[in-house]
Amino acid sequence: MENPFSEGENRVIRPPATALVIFGATGDLTKRKLIPALYNLAHDDYLPSCFVVIGAARTKLTDEQFRNDVLASVKEHSRRPVDEKVWARFAANMYYQPVDGSVADDFAKLRNRLTQLGQERSENLNYLYYLSVAPEHFGPIAANLKHAGLVEEPSSGTRRTSLIIEKPFGHDLESARTLNAIVRGSFAEEQIFRIDHYLGKETVQNILVLRFSNGVFEPLWNHNHIDNIQISVCENIGVGSRASYFDNSGILRDIVQNHLLQMLSLLCIEPPLSLSDANSIRDEKVKVLRAIKRFSLEEVATSTARAQYSSGFIDGQPVPGYRGEKGVRPDSETETYVAMRLEIDNWRWVGVPIYVRAGKRLPRRITEITIYFKKAPSSIFRGRQIQDLEQNALVIQVQPDEGIAFRINAKPPGPRLRVRPVDLDFEYGDSFAVPSAEAYERLILDSMKGDATLFIRDDEIEEAWDLLTPVMRAWGEDGTIAPPLYHYEAGSWGPSAAAQLLRPRGHRWRRL
Amino acid sequence: MENPFSEGENRVIRPPATALVIFGATGDLTKRKLIPALYNLAHDDYLPSCFVVIGAARTKLTDEQFRNDVLASVKEHSRRPVDEKVWARFAANMYYQPVDGSVADDFAKLRNRLTQLGQERSENLNYLYYLSVAPEHFGPIAANLKHAGLVEEPSSGTRRTSLIIEKPFGHDLESARTLNAIVRGSFAEEQIFRIDHYLGKETVQNILVLRFSNGVFEPLWNHNHIDNIQISVCENIGVGSRASYFDNSGILRDIVQNHLLQMLSLLCIEPPLSLSDANSIRDEKVKVLRAIKRFSLEEVATSTARAQYSSGFIDGQPVPGYRGEKGVRPDSETETYVAMRLEIDNWRWVGVPIYVRAGKRLPRRITEITIYFKKAPSSIFRGRQIQDLEQNALVIQVQPDEGIAFRINAKPPGPRLRVRPVDLDFEYGDSFAVPSAEAYERLILDSMKGDATLFIRDDEIEEAWDLLTPVMRAWGEDGTIAPPLYHYEAGSWGPSAAAQLLRPRGHRWRRL
Repeated sequence: MENPFSEGENRVIRPPATALVIFGATGDLTKRKLIPALYNLAHDDYLPSCFVVIGAARTKLTDEQFRNDVLASVKEHSRRPVDEKVWARFAANMYYQPVDGSVADDFAKLRNRLTQLGQERSENLNYLYYLSVAPEHFGPIAANLKHAGLVEEPSSGTRRTSLIIEKPFGHDLESARTLNAIVRGSFAEEQIFRIDHYLGKETVQNILVLRFSNGVFEPLWNHNHIDNIQISVCENIGVGSRASYFDNSGILRDIVQNHLLQMLSLLCIEPPLSLSDANSIRDEKVKVLRAIKRFSLEEVATSTARAQYSSGFIDGQPVPGYRGEKGVRPDSETETYVAMRLEIDNWRWVGVPIYVRAGKRLPRRITEITIYFKKAPSSIFRGRQIQDLEQNALVIQVQPDEGIAFRINAKPPGPRLRVRPVDLDFEYGDSFAVPSAEAYERLILDSMKGDATLFIRDDEIEEAWDLLTPVMRAWGEDGTIAPPLYHYEAGSWGPSAAAQLLRPRGHRWRRL
Repeated sequence: MENPFSEGENRVIRPPATALVIFGATGDLTKRKLIPALYNLAHDDYLPSCFVVIGAARTKLTDEQFRNDVLASVKEHSRRPVDEKVWARFAANMYYQPVDGSVADDFAKLRNRLTQLGQERSENLNYLYYLSVAPEHFGPIAANLKHAGLVEEPSSGTRRTSLIIEKPFGHDLESARTLNAIVRGSFAEEQIFRIDHYLGKETVQNILVLRFSNGVFEPLWNHNHIDNIQISVCENIGVGSRASYFDNSGILRDIVQNHLLQMLSLLCIEPPLSLSDANSIRDEKVKVLRAIKRFSLEEVATSTARAQYSSGFIDGQPVPGYRGEKGVRPDSETETYVAMRLEIDNWRWVGVPIYVRAGKRLPRRITEITIYFKKAPSSIFRGRQIQDLEQNALVIQVQPDEGIAFRINAKPPGPRLRVRPVDLDFEYGDSFAVPSAEAYERLILDSMKGDATLFIRDDEIEEAWDLLTPVMRAWGEDGTIAPPLYHYEAGSWGPSAAAQLLRPRGHRWRRL
């Protein structure tokens, strides 16, 4: 794989000339995330010097209508105010092409449009297709692109063609395999960029830099020195407009299978050969996912907890229970909270519990990774009336504020020998003058450069589903094996069953 | 040794009833440091509930005159403003007794005074003698105290009698042994509290807490993970009123032999059995001092650098050269700057260079310990155009601001993989609401409690001198072996010869 970052330390090399075709261009994601991300890339001058965007969807719109439509949403969702000049330059290369994903003829028109735009610019454009549509459309669109001659072989040496797709990548192992097979029917694996937007977040990327650019962490990064790891993905929102989708999937599929296991695997990989080579990293991530102990159906009952929120209060405001949400079946058994105790059964991690949890309608929105280190032996303080020493902890906060804190023990000033924890910390906002970009900016830019490091490979998807298969099976059975679906009050930190998972080792969830 | 900290976590147990006799009560140290420290202990209510101070010196003063004299200096030197009520209560137990250290009869009077003060209070007072006098008076005073029956055997079980002495503890190994022998002629080693005020500083005490209450540091604290250690004691002042004393000793004796080697030995000790037992810690400190490789005379030339400041500028103001200072011989060869490369030749530290330096008339006053960890292999960043990775560093700032910083590498926000060092840090002032006490407060309180942990034992003194013996010998020889005495401009960071010491391993002094 070519090196996409061949620039010098302070020089930005733009991606090559690219046409980005967004399928589902009138949809929510396009308006809220993609176009604002592109606008901000334009603002920072990171885009290719020759760059065109083609919005594609079933609706009939003129270029002008499309530009006006998306301008409104950029104004609403961009992380910075819209600069008219930047917008004008950017929008001049934005087009709209009506495409029904199942109509082959529409793709012939799309091809003509692409050819024409390239010719007008005398550029050999790379083609990047962004499928911002439901997964059932992946197959037809990919096949029609292929059929229309819009997918080059990776080795053809003419133009690079790539496909970006978004989760859900299947509903279980079988459907994921089917989906991967369908997409790979038209595109080679190396042409497919599966987005998990968590991987575009600064702190998640920083996991690799922290681990592998520092001499102090790697020696500690194993079961000899790490006591337990906790990963929490907490939301205070409910299901909102995604209710009917969510009610058919649940939080295990919606968060754990992708975001959470992705963070876990990055955190726990062996040092890859190189950070410049996407497959070096992805090979190691797959190894972690494969090494996580699979549950027997019986173990699911003792190693997982699931629950659904009932009515309660968020920020002092009453909120309905999950079953009272619009779009949710009134007898729904879908989980909105999950906690699991995992173990990676390899040389590095044997015996280290990895506790993960994800939930909706929790008291606050926070995603955090905490690595707890083993305690120092307190014997040395004998006779000093030192209460139990606290564990050292490295806390990586992913959102809402990206930052790192290292909790160590120190002596408070005073005439006695006492020990108190203190936090050595920094926040991105304070430490670097640069504002953090939105995850999508980074990911779209990488895909134009052909850098797949922060995208998920097919086997990662399948291993993650494989891990969750017994969980889904046990939960779906008649209830004699599975843990029951508990209920927790909206605005609480989840069911007490989640705390029980940590009891065998005397651990506790970090207070967030 | 008894446990002096048998209090509960939040309860202060006062030291037992004590009479503190300060010899040299009209001197500079008493006025600037001791009485202000006692006043602040009174303010914080840390003193024994029955506590008397007797100032002793040759001058004839009444109690009242002494009280008024020291009030003036407390007002000038106390770290907080004088509260009249606290002062009144404290001063009511302050007395003055004229004593000539060489006149036996004066000690009989002192004994009567002590007996009377104890009887008035119906208390069995412990006797604590603070020798704030030149070392040549240690012998006569100690002998006269003994002769007057003012020194109890440690095992007598009546009252505790202790002696506090201040550096210089000798001028070389031989004189130190002689001085130790003289003092031990009247007091048992366990009754002798040798003060090094650096050990009373919060950050120096925190070295032990940092190392031994945290799970993360001890695994890293050895030659496998530490690349080099640097200890710097920098002053911007010249010699001032101590010129004639300093000109006969030099900075090697004045700073390195005590403060600097004390910090070094605390930093590098093996885990002691207990932090509650002074000898557990001091045994380990002696082991470190003994393990430091002794120089041959030839090695002194390549492992040390010495220099004297010439005229220059401090804070933009012109200052004279050392030989132009009042009280300094105009042809003085005394060093005002020293740098050394040391190595502790044991299992933990083999091969780790320990660079120390101390100097006067440097650009700023700063005492700092830096532990540099080995770099991560940068191979993993190949192809990413990452410049050389910086070393991780743990920085313990001892003065002027007490604080700790941990320098690690992280990824600055942005679409490229870059690595930049960031400092995770805390300052005592920010992190704890309590202001740091002066070093003397802590040390006087410990001595009243009988806790010798932060005081130097006779064998530590002697090992430190033993280490420096070849250095002093080589420097004192005809100059064919020793490194020459270089000169550095006042306000510069010292001679370039100091940088040369770090060359063989490609290291550099930390920029302060």
